[in-house]
Amino acid sequence: TTTFLAREHQHIRYNPLQDEWVLVSAHRMKRPWQGQVEPSLLKTVPRHDPHNPLCPGATRANGEVNPHYDGTFLFDNDFPALQPDAPNPGPSDHPLFQAEAARGVCKVLCFHPWSDMTLPLMSVPEIRAVVDVWATVTEELGAQYPWVQIFENKGAMMGCSNPHPHCQVWASSFLPDIAQREERSQRAYQNQHGEPLLMKYVHQELLRKERLVLTSEHWLVLVPFWAVWPFQTLLLPRRHVRRLPELTPAERDDLAFIMKKLLTKYDNLFETSFPYTMGWHGAPTGSEAEASWDHWQLHAHYYPPLLRSATVRKFMVGYEMLAQAQRDLTPEQAAERLRALPEVHYSLGPK
Amino acid sequence: TTTFLAREHQHIRYNPLQDEWVLVSAHRMKRPWQGQVEPSLLKTVPRHDPHNPLCPGATRANGEVNPHYDGTFLFDNDFPALQPDAPNPGPSDHPLFQAEAARGVCKVLCFHPWSDMTLPLMSVPEIRAVVDVWATVTEELGAQYPWVQIFENKGAMMGCSNPHPHCQVWASSFLPDIAQREERSQRAYQNQHGEPLLMKYVHQELLRKERLVLTSEHWLVLVPFWAVWPFQTLLLPRRHVRRLPELTPAERDDLAFIMKKLLTKYDNLFETSFPYTMGWHGAPTGSEAEASWDHWQLHAHYYPPLLRSATVRKFMVGYEMLAQAQRDLTPEQAAERLRALPEVHYSLGPK
Ligand SMILES: O=P(O)(O)O[C@H]1O[C@H](CO)[C@@H](O)[C@H](O)[C@H]1O
Ligand SMILES: O=P(O)(O)O[C@H]1O[C@H](CO)[C@@H](O)[C@H](O)[C@H]1O
Repeated sequence: TTTFLAREHQHIRYNPLQDEWVLVSAHRMKRPWQGQVEPSLLKTVPRHDPHNPLCPGATRANGEVNPHYDGTFLFDNDFPALQPDAPNPGPSDHPLFQAEAARGVCKVLCFHPWSDMTLPLMSVPEIRAVVDVWATVTEELGAQYPWVQIFENKGAMMGCSNPHPHCQVWASSFLPDIAQREERSQRAYQNQHGEPLLMKYVHQELLRKERLVLTSEHWLVLVPFWAVWPFQTLLLPRRHVRRLPELTPAERDDLAFIMKKLLTKYDNLFETSFPYTMGWHGAPTGSEAEASWDHWQLHAHYYPPLLRSATVRKFMVGYEMLAQAQRDLTPEQAAERLRALPEVHYSLGPK
Repeated sequence: TTTFLAREHQHIRYNPLQDEWVLVSAHRMKRPWQGQVEPSLLKTVPRHDPHNPLCPGATRANGEVNPHYDGTFLFDNDFPALQPDAPNPGPSDHPLFQAEAARGVCKVLCFHPWSDMTLPLMSVPEIRAVVDVWATVTEELGAQYPWVQIFENKGAMMGCSNPHPHCQVWASSFLPDIAQREERSQRAYQNQHGEPLLMKYVHQELLRKERLVLTSEHWLVLVPFWAVWPFQTLLLPRRHVRRLPELTPAERDDLAFIMKKLLTKYDNLFETSFPYTMGWHGAPTGSEAEASWDHWQLHAHYYPPLLRSATVRKFMVGYEMLAQAQRDLTPEQAAERLRALPEVHYSLGPK
């Protein structure tokens, strides 16, 4: 019988954090691609556009004028999916027709005054300023809401509707679906094994090494064993930290540093401004913030869609939407490629 | 206090079939869209292209020559994600690193010999021929495999890599993730309420009427209460049917008929060849096919991405990937719009 080789033989892997399986069929990278090619990203973005509502000095949809900010800038989303005061839909009249109240706040955080800037090109102190706002906004909105979701959609391919470097913060009166899954998994693991799932996982990955991408004094980046997106990564602190506000100044500096390295590698992979969705997950907040959340470990997920080049992405459709996620290269192959990339941005190096 | 109105006030809804929540924020349709605009689909597809491996008489990647078929044509995918003979990864050495064997078969089914044809433009007897192959292939592959996933990716936007009208069939040695979720939910509902979840659900929707799109003698189409995609629909038989092969000839004819109507409405919505992922879910098959699967009801999901026009789609990114699905119009609004559309294809009617 043939010896099993992950990079040649399809198999399924389990994601213990979100309780999901993924089909890994690495031999599938060999198939030709005749499908959609993404528009090239070379359209230049003007550094300042007075009509872009995210720019310093611009007028927003609600008539407010942005300050002439020169660092980060946090403001309320003018078209929020969550508002603080929606009425309650009332009790459901049937178990198959359940609706519940949803209240919350949506904010936008500009990373930098320039529209043509991106995180990997920002300086470490500039990125550190973003980290500080992430921590503060988690603290402020977390005082009232049980979940504060920080996320960045980067690139038009990822539904980002404005090229200005920014992320969003959506705080909600409910624990969203994926937060609930991570809560259940981490709580069950702690009950059964007496330590946090992600602490144990990181310990193992540091021993096994094959999925590590970057390590620093306080952080590490790895392609998780159960990654779904081609070059998906997980960014976590080495220390047991439940939420962003708990990070020490040294850990924040080091986070800015490792983020710059990771995002530079991402841009270097296909020599393009690498699109992705990223976001932070930490222990729930709100009125139950003081409960025991020791089973939680702070982490960020990066979900980038590109597969083969700057213009050929992985589509999560068909089988993926109806049956199960599927990937075309192994997580180990992805980690190896990311590890090998330079830490200097391709646009800055010698040609 | 304000009275709750679903179309004005955000709320969350529960999907009892897949055990997930969706955030409904209908007021959000008001925001301007400055993001990605999809390439227009007006590129004409040649009726016959000898270099397209899906065409009659074309040579495929493995050197085989397609017959000069004039109806449907079913063949083995030349780049299958699942193969019948992959070795077993062996026992996992750690609970956080679980991998299991995956075996299966991937097939492609061409609907029609012409590359410029689509299902809504095919005749009812031609669609009926597709339904028959769906039933046969489910029976054949279901004899060996516990899950046979039939799915169609339509349109480049949905990752479809070949314009020729076709769907795929992936049979697997494992129950995929989403099948497992539907199995758990339907089994639990039957245990608790003594009848199949989807039979009860359809009964309720026929009474409530507000989410119905189409009804026929044997079938109905509705926008589920928990729909995630803007114009997502669920297609089900009225009778309790567990799997495609159980459909009677009259039910198959009627299915072809209602599919033609639904897909015509879809094309008419934005006057474009409407992209979507669709697929069938029925009771598991394989060696356990004879077990009790009465809690299952056959159904097809349609997941179309377009939101505002032929070129502006809903992106499931950011909050959706990290926290919870979110939609921008209510399922009731979507059903109302689909109901109002003509059942004659826009390309055939008077201008
Ligand atoms: O098999 P195709 O059409 O080449 O590929 C498409 O469908 C597959 C099954 O849903 C997906 O895994 C691919 O990402 C998608 O591009
Ligand atoms: O808020 P934006 O950037 O306009 O919109 C983008 O992010 C949102 C949150 O992930 C999504 O709901 C939208 O589909 C996406 O286009």
